[in-house]
Amino acid sequence: MPQLFTINYSDNNTSARAGVLHTDHGDIPTPCFIPVGTYGAVKTQSSKEIVDLPSSILLSNTYHLYLRPGTEIIKKAGGLHSFMNWQGAILTDSGGFQIFSLEGYRKVTDDGVTFRSHLDGSEHHFTPEKIVDIQRIIGSDFMMMLDVCPSGDADYQTWVDALSTTTNWAKRCMKHFKETEPIYGHRQALIPVVQGGTDKNLRKQSAEELCELDADAYAIGGLAVGEPKPEMLETVEWMDDFLPKEKPRYLMGVGTPSDLVRNVERGVDMFDCVMPTRNARNGQLFTYDGKINIRNAKYKSDFSPIDENGFSPMSERNTKAYLHHLFKTEEILGYRIATQHNLKFYIHLMKTMHNKIQNGNFETWAKEFIMQYSGEGILD
Amino acid sequence: MPQLFTINYSDNNTSARAGVLHTDHGDIPTPCFIPVGTYGAVKTQSSKEIVDLPSSILLSNTYHLYLRPGTEIIKKAGGLHSFMNWQGAILTDSGGFQIFSLEGYRKVTDDGVTFRSHLDGSEHHFTPEKIVDIQRIIGSDFMMMLDVCPSGDADYQTWVDALSTTTNWAKRCMKHFKETEPIYGHRQALIPVVQGGTDKNLRKQSAEELCELDADAYAIGGLAVGEPKPEMLETVEWMDDFLPKEKPRYLMGVGTPSDLVRNVERGVDMFDCVMPTRNARNGQLFTYDGKINIRNAKYKSDFSPIDENGFSPMSERNTKAYLHHLFKTEEILGYRIATQHNLKFYIHLMKTMHNKIQNGNFETWAKEFIMQYSGEGILD
Repeated sequence: MPQLFTINYSDNNTSARAGVLHTDHGDIPTPCFIPVGTYGAVKTQSSKEIVDLPSSILLSNTYHLYLRPGTEIIKKAGGLHSFMNWQGAILTDSGGFQIFSLEGYRKVTDDGVTFRSHLDGSEHHFTPEKIVDIQRIIGSDFMMMLDVCPSGDADYQTWVDALSTTTNWAKRCMKHFKETEPIYGHRQALIPVVQGGTDKNLRKQSAEELCELDADAYAIGGLAVGEPKPEMLETVEWMDDFLPKEKPRYLMGVGTPSDLVRNVERGVDMFDCVMPTRNARNGQLFTYDGKINIRNAKYKSDFSPIDENGFSPMSERNTKAYLHHLFKTEEILGYRIATQHNLKFYIHLMKTMHNKIQNGNFETWAKEFIMQYSGEGILD
Repeated sequence: MPQLFTINYSDNNTSARAGVLHTDHGDIPTPCFIPVGTYGAVKTQSSKEIVDLPSSILLSNTYHLYLRPGTEIIKKAGGLHSFMNWQGAILTDSGGFQIFSLEGYRKVTDDGVTFRSHLDGSEHHFTPEKIVDIQRIIGSDFMMMLDVCPSGDADYQTWVDALSTTTNWAKRCMKHFKETEPIYGHRQALIPVVQGGTDKNLRKQSAEELCELDADAYAIGGLAVGEPKPEMLETVEWMDDFLPKEKPRYLMGVGTPSDLVRNVERGVDMFDCVMPTRNARNGQLFTYDGKINIRNAKYKSDFSPIDENGFSPMSERNTKAYLHHLFKTEEILGYRIATQHNLKFYIHLMKTMHNKIQNGNFETWAKEFIMQYSGEGILD
């Protein structure tokens, strides 16, 4: 089987690396940001628009797809790629995070997790094996293992228990993965999720246990769930030592533009986050000069382009005043323009980082970017 | 000034005509359907997508734009074309219809109409002159005169009064129009609206009075407001005799695909309607075989393309099952795909009619289309 990941450039001054993920649905330059399409659609955007970001990967969610449209439909469609007419790669979140967000509606045992649907209250049971099976049916290029993700304010014992269950489930996931085959002929990689809260020893233990599985890539979970940002950054820093250098590292659910830069600096290759899409629908735009909220009255008669940096045609063609008007009148086109802007910005930022790492000036650029974007001392 | 309208082909068997509207923002083949973008955006669609329908004209609304973003912003932007980044032609409805739909919130005098905003209840006063001024600021290629549009169940005397006020206002509109100049340098045509309910004599009187103004085009108003469909069709038939042959006729707010065919048959050149866009957002799709509702359970596992007639790339690429899923999960992409499908269908239908008139086989085709689309005897 061909190599999944190639590191082409390693930064001399930081842990940043620039490389390529090789999938049967195309190559993905890293560091990469993965747009979120929970239900098999990146909110407001067409598949073609995702290709044009450009992105050759998107994320969808096992839990959500399992509920709607259901595995029967996805199987009949020939997998999610075919169902949603997407030729690029797909990473599916296991749904663990979503299920553990359903406070009071789920119960974890050694066997798996029982939960009630957020849609109709119906009861469902997920095991590590079932999560693999569902993702075989979805046909994701990157499948996530079922893990236990404690909330940000969890105590030490909760972290310990989550870690232990996550490791046990990971072993079962890997075993079942090896006993099953892709349904649609293309390669699928299975990714374990390191847990352990913000405790160094637990993170080390989790990484060591999961590394024994010799997976193709490793995800860092249980962060950006409410812990202070310095602790998140420190934890990722540890992970750089605990995880194998040659394999891709995926930091789940992170984050702001500055977060991306700081974590690339710390050796992360893959990111996903709802922020660019969700915040867009609330009128928040990311730019190289920081965040703006287009709903703000000062944009009512601001006829400058939404962005002049040239990474989004819609942002160049349309003015802030027009976008402000579209938000005020709740026109869907406004959500589309803002979403496209933010995604283009995120993708452009990743490409910039790739180039800076390649050219050996990542560290200087990163400092300048963070200063320009957030200002000094702000962990935005 | 160059001619506004050229009739290139007249059907031998019906009153149908195929021609071109010439504007400073491009030529528009007729018969034409004008997509509705009330607030300066066709709901869910980008300007580029309207161009790609293809449509080189869209409709916006004077009343709505006056409230949001307001004339001050539009003037600062250099007109609506510039504000919304639209290079095609624009027709603006006067807002009369919208104001008269605000039951209990408006008062008509000889001078004009006083009404309360549907947004914040603030009081406003529109005169025929003011409506011209606002549309000068908007910069619409086709400006509509302020008219009185009675509801579908209005009595004879209401029709008489509406007609009389409409004529008086039309004279004032035309006078003010001639005393003012376009602000942005491009040509603006001013269109009066024939009223008179479904009474032949009143329609004749209204048409005669308005024809004295020698306007560039004539609109037929006060139809599709609740009257029985045979009466609507008969009224349009009379108008064919009462209105000058050489000028474009615009039937406001109509209608279903069959309505378009039947009224082209009766000599109408221009149409607008919210139906393709509004119904799309409710899951109703128009096809050459009739209407379908994509929310229907039978489409859950229907993996055939949304439409195979090739007029909409999104409809060809995506399956009914996927669109059904997008509607069930309330994904905006679903509204986009359905809207694009319906608009493409409407525009394709108009182009087909243009070709059929040109080739001399319109009447036969129209019969077949209506049979195929609605079935015999159904005035759908």
